[in-house]
Amino acid sequence: MPPRRYQFGRADEATHPDSMRATLAEFLSTIIFVFAGEGSILALDKMYKDTSATPARLVMIALAHGLSLFAAVASSVNVSGGHVNPAVTFGALLCGRISLVRALYYWIAQLLGSIVACLLLRLTAGMRPGGFALASGVGELRGLILEIVLTYGLVYTVYATGIDPKRGSVGTIAPLAIGLIVSANILVGGPFDGAAMNPARAFGPALVGWRWNHHWIYWVGPLIGGGLAALIYEYMVIPAAEPAHPTHQPLAPEDY
Amino acid sequence: MPPRRYQFGRADEATHPDSMRATLAEFLSTIIFVFAGEGSILALDKMYKDTSATPARLVMIALAHGLSLFAAVASSVNVSGGHVNPAVTFGALLCGRISLVRALYYWIAQLLGSIVACLLLRLTAGMRPGGFALASGVGELRGLILEIVLTYGLVYTVYATGIDPKRGSVGTIAPLAIGLIVSANILVGGPFDGAAMNPARAFGPALVGWRWNHHWIYWVGPLIGGGLAALIYEYMVIPAAEPAHPTHQPLAPEDY
Amino acid sequence: MPPRRYQFGRADEATHPDSMRATLAEFLSTIIFVFAGEGSILALDKMYKDTSATPARLVMIALAHGLSLFAAVASSVNVSGGHVNPAVTFGALLCGRISLVRALYYWIAQLLGSIVACLLLRLTAGMRPGGFALASGVGELRGLILEIVLTYGLVYTVYATGIDPKRGSVGTIAPLAIGLIVSANILVGGPFDGAAMNPARAFGPALVGWRWNHHWIYWVGPLIGGGLAALIYEYMVIPAAEPAHPTHQPLAPEDY
Amino acid sequence: MPPRRYQFGRADEATHPDSMRATLAEFLSTIIFVFAGEGSILALDKMYKDTSATPARLVMIALAHGLSLFAAVASSVNVSGGHVNPAVTFGALLCGRISLVRALYYWIAQLLGSIVACLLLRLTAGMRPGGFALASGVGELRGLILEIVLTYGLVYTVYATGIDPKRGSVGTIAPLAIGLIVSANILVGGPFDGAAMNPARAFGPALVGWRWNHHWIYWVGPLIGGGLAALIYEYMVIPAAEPAHPTHQPLAPEDY
Repeated sequence: MPPRRYQFGRADEATHPDSMRATLAEFLSTIIFVFAGEGSILALDKMYKDTSATPARLVMIALAHGLSLFAAVASSVNVSGGHVNPAVTFGALLCGRISLVRALYYWIAQLLGSIVACLLLRLTAGMRPGGFALASGVGELRGLILEIVLTYGLVYTVYATGIDPKRGSVGTIAPLAIGLIVSANILVGGPFDGAAMNPARAFGPALVGWRWNHHWIYWVGPLIGGGLAALIYEYMVIPAAEPAHPTHQPLAPEDY
Repeated sequence: MPPRRYQFGRADEATHPDSMRATLAEFLSTIIFVFAGEGSILALDKMYKDTSATPARLVMIALAHGLSLFAAVASSVNVSGGHVNPAVTFGALLCGRISLVRALYYWIAQLLGSIVACLLLRLTAGMRPGGFALASGVGELRGLILEIVLTYGLVYTVYATGIDPKRGSVGTIAPLAIGLIVSANILVGGPFDGAAMNPARAFGPALVGWRWNHHWIYWVGPLIGGGLAALIYEYMVIPAAEPAHPTHQPLAPEDY
Repeated sequence: MPPRRYQFGRADEATHPDSMRATLAEFLSTIIFVFAGEGSILALDKMYKDTSATPARLVMIALAHGLSLFAAVASSVNVSGGHVNPAVTFGALLCGRISLVRALYYWIAQLLGSIVACLLLRLTAGMRPGGFALASGVGELRGLILEIVLTYGLVYTVYATGIDPKRGSVGTIAPLAIGLIVSANILVGGPFDGAAMNPARAFGPALVGWRWNHHWIYWVGPLIGGGLAALIYEYMVIPAAEPAHPTHQPLAPEDY
Repeated sequence: MPPRRYQFGRADEATHPDSMRATLAEFLSTIIFVFAGEGSILALDKMYKDTSATPARLVMIALAHGLSLFAAVASSVNVSGGHVNPAVTFGALLCGRISLVRALYYWIAQLLGSIVACLLLRLTAGMRPGGFALASGVGELRGLILEIVLTYGLVYTVYATGIDPKRGSVGTIAPLAIGLIVSANILVGGPFDGAAMNPARAFGPALVGWRWNHHWIYWVGPLIGGGLAALIYEYMVIPAAEPAHPTHQPLAPEDY
């Protein structure tokens, strides 16, 4: 399936009701995700002053992120495509799957959603959001590569489970796979760089909590990783057309 | 899809077998959910006298609530719509999706289910249910806003995953998304106000354990949050009709 | 859908290849479930000598049981119906959904599977299985009622998610709901009576580890709870026929 | 369904675009899985020097493996069949479901994927991968049998959820069941032998970390277990043809 190329900035899109609905859905879903994700870290602060990582805390943070992202993606997948992440939108833009206008709308909605979630947390938890930072002993380059690799895994999962032309059954589990790979990746990257994999997830707490150390890493890393994943999947993995030799049997590709 | 408006209180509904079955399903599913949710807190008391929050305890409580709610919603979704929560029923009523008579039936069934679950817990665990309360340092207004925001996320997920007109694939994961957003939200709100998001969940333990401190918060907050979520989804997010420009592709809305 | 009544003990069933396959599937799936469930408790013993309950241990045991049961049910659901539990088979028998001959086959397969799993654990872990027992301070009657209630929740979920006449979408999540309600219920019942909810799960460790204290509770409780759930669902909740007023919309039963 | 027999090594397969895409998908999915699985162990090392097993650490490792494997299988299932494991490929080869050429391609891709994941971990985490080893007190024979049993459970789940001829609904949950049985089995086998169940998962860390103690166990055990599971399922459990007496009703096989 060759990607469609859209004319960027068609005049009618900016006011098309479907664009507005999709943008609103991105905004609302990002609130749900960031409120639970960042909120789980504040909940840890509420329980203890000591905020060093332990396995139980990491599991708690990973589940809060992954389970809420699953719900957020499942809630918006049929309206906006369920991006909830500027890196996913960037990958879709690179492959020509959405127009630049819509991508801009989504990015603004995702960033605003994250800010609103952090303001709501500040109001209800009464705490300054913590945001992301590199652990001691982790250099900027290493953190950058880690964000690239982790986001690569996330966005590859987004594409490979969500864009399959034979959507029927596998499409159902895309939101769950997307949420749970984020949980798994946080269990890896959490103690090193926090494992954002999502510029919007990092931006809201940085702005509301006013903490900008190493912030560029959480933009550059996810955008590179997400773009790479989208391009590799689009141009190398999925078939160029409805395959002459269909290979859709889970265990037994029989077409050779 | 404009919501249908029902005549409230049609005489035949009160005795219609389908209404009775649906009401019974709500009652039985609420027992399963509250027994596991409240029971997990009593199980912690059985293990330790110290009941302060820790990450592992919070994960345990969040999983007990989320996994049992998933089973409870999945068990009743085809019979009653799988509300298991007066705030969900309230949202459906506000949008004209169920009649007032059925809403009243559901509310009574949900409250009775919660009471029965707590009586069974008192009988089997031999303990007084704990119910919900604000943590020290959390004021009533802050707790109220937290319940509103948390319930908003839950009921938005209920609507966005469960009411989609193109039900086919996404409808399958509605019960799972509903259960797991409750788990995620408990990981945020638990240390602050317990994160009820459900008046019936709060009412049973309050009555059987006779603890009414701040109890109004667990009614007013979820009803406001649930009502808001239902109205926003119904009137702003979902299309007004089967869309002329279908936008159902998970990653690639192609209609512009 | 009125349950079908089978003639018990039809001669051809005993040797019918489908019966043999279904019985074998029950045997193999029970091995997978009991090996992981009982094995997780031995893994705790391997890590610590102290075996008192903590939240993290309870979560670990609950996940080992629930996730492996999900896989076991998903693996056998299309061949045998995915019982993996004599209490589920008992409920199906009570409602006339399977014949007595097949129920006997399933029971033997489930008990043998549990024994084989425990023998494999004894061989690989080199430990004596622990099995189930009442916690100190929990009387036999209280333990019995607890097993009844917990198994009721499990078997109600089995029936309500698995037997729906409009199978299409919800049937998919039945194995997951079944596995995860077991996880949730273990988080409640674990510190009180172990939360077996399954006579086969209790029987293998009791035989191989030769521990029979209170063993009858883990037979009588699940059979009563499972039978109750099956009868209530069959005769009170599900419609008697393909409904004239279909009520299958997740949130919006529109038939009144 | 009698397995198809392929001519081994047909000349056109080696360069067929579908074979290349499937091989690439195996490579990319294995990176995602091993990066999260092995990475979670390095994340523990980052948090503590002490690496002895505790329930919370075991849960963390089990979730990192299971959730990432779910995403990896879901991402590749429609392109390559979603093996991500040489033992699964070996089983498919034994049953004649894939050709030897394709099996060789998959094996190379899986091993390369694991190596690349471990190199990326070495680069980003700055640590030497730990790989697998027998716990003290666990002999080689016992470890071997444990790997056989654990892998048997995994590959049986792969086959029983993924190859069903009536694929419709159950096929959807195959990737989830596969991921979560790995989580469950790690909660059993982790403290004894690490619970690899996958030669590629073990090979990458062994090579990059240069630790070869008992390494043969993590090849021989999974290949025996996976082969056994595939053969038993293929020849004993699944019907020989589209059944004259279909038995696909989840709870109520009605054909006798």
